[in-house]
Amino acid sequence: MKVKFTKMQGAGNDYIYVNTFLYPLEEPERLSQEWSRPHTGIGSDGLVLIGPSEEGDFSMRIFNADGSEAMMCGNASRCIGKYVYENGLTQKTRVALETRSGIKILNLRVNDERVVESVTVDMGIPTGITPVDLGEGYGYSQGIAVSMGNPHLVIFVDQVSDVRLSEVGPLLEHHPLFPDRVNVEFAQVIDGSHIRMRVWERGSGITLACGTGACATAVAAAFTGRCGRESDVTMDGGTLHLQWNEADGHLLMGGPAGKVFDGEIEYEPSK
Amino acid sequence: MKVKFTKMQGAGNDYIYVNTFLYPLEEPERLSQEWSRPHTGIGSDGLVLIGPSEEGDFSMRIFNADGSEAMMCGNASRCIGKYVYENGLTQKTRVALETRSGIKILNLRVNDERVVESVTVDMGIPTGITPVDLGEGYGYSQGIAVSMGNPHLVIFVDQVSDVRLSEVGPLLEHHPLFPDRVNVEFAQVIDGSHIRMRVWERGSGITLACGTGACATAVAAAFTGRCGRESDVTMDGGTLHLQWNEADGHLLMGGPAGKVFDGEIEYEPSK
Repeated sequence: MKVKFTKMQGAGNDYIYVNTFLYPLEEPERLSQEWSRPHTGIGSDGLVLIGPSEEGDFSMRIFNADGSEAMMCGNASRCIGKYVYENGLTQKTRVALETRSGIKILNLRVNDERVVESVTVDMGIPTGITPVDLGEGYGYSQGIAVSMGNPHLVIFVDQVSDVRLSEVGPLLEHHPLFPDRVNVEFAQVIDGSHIRMRVWERGSGITLACGTGACATAVAAAFTGRCGRESDVTMDGGTLHLQWNEADGHLLMGGPAGKVFDGEIEYEPSK
Repeated sequence: MKVKFTKMQGAGNDYIYVNTFLYPLEEPERLSQEWSRPHTGIGSDGLVLIGPSEEGDFSMRIFNADGSEAMMCGNASRCIGKYVYENGLTQKTRVALETRSGIKILNLRVNDERVVESVTVDMGIPTGITPVDLGEGYGYSQGIAVSMGNPHLVIFVDQVSDVRLSEVGPLLEHHPLFPDRVNVEFAQVIDGSHIRMRVWERGSGITLACGTGACATAVAAAFTGRCGRESDVTMDGGTLHLQWNEADGHLLMGGPAGKVFDGEIEYEPSK
């Protein structure tokens, strides 16, 4: 059986995108594992299925390279915005995407040649924004806790390149203030609208970029008056643009979403 | 500009194959670097260009992921055999391939559905087959030197899984008997036609598989009477089948060559 796919990436997250209107894949867990492998597979961070939705315009299911199903990924949802518009699945520039974390609203900026130049995703309302005292033994005494659905701890530093991430990351991830463990962001304010950030992801360690981590960082910077309500957060994998609406408290995240290539792969269904 | 490509792999070596009859790429060094990258590129060990040849049926140019041009790769040349036949570029099952190491002869085994099931490449005549004394301080006292165009040192052991490759590999690579350094193979004879091998590649360290290393191993085993003239060498990346012809001394290497997927990528020429 032959399946057409598109490899897309945003801020260093690359996934294999399949239109399940055309290719209703039966075993996404197995295929995500097989196809994500380098050398013998396509090579990716995972598999994303684009399908129909009753509550929204489309649904997204996202599988990690180990076959497990993820809740949501901001970078992947932006890529879906580009995919559905440029492949003619919709003519809307405001798309409601059903995810395991609920409906996410995508806003597409389209140029005169009908190319999607950028996509913004509404990340919802940040909650639990609280300055915290870390106590002794962690190398850093102050941080800002922010929840974006998942827990974050943002620590502002003078020089983010000096942070020994692999040493302090695991210590802070398990700080007793966060019984469910926490994602840790080290942030250096460049100016009132630019932040350089490095992230230690809960369960994953050092990664190139983290969408919700960029959100938490921009929120913490605005909350403490270090930046305005609109800022760019630059990580090793790329830069995301965050906009924290004063009116409704929603946080919008924009950033790159690009097609890498189109492909076609043959596979044997197990059944 | 859009370019069609095919990703193929043999024994764990995966390359991007482009038909330069249709797509005469001008900057293979740059494209090999860009396209070989994971996440933002296609992801591969490098780029292989299939083109016309005056001396043979086709030419192969092979570029590593760092943009440098390689001399020859047995796994890649087998994949080319499959590519040119299955894409209708030739109906021959004996293909003369021009490489930077000279003309290589490919023999294709084709089934009734015109699918290339396996490809054998003539690796030439092994030379300099010599038992060597390694002296003290290397952990191993005896080896067999074999040249396959590049230098190899084959060491037979009882349990190849016990070899501490990352410790002894660099020591033996720089053994004074080999002023140009040497590729080192540790080989465990399973029976008269099966060998398990792990390789330390000169300049690269531990790799999943090494075509010329498998050749040298089979030759050393036959030379010392441990195996016959035909044997399977299994490495972490896969198994190769070696056949050392008594009549003309040529060594034939066969093994897997598979298409992973077809793709199409857009790129901007620099000029």
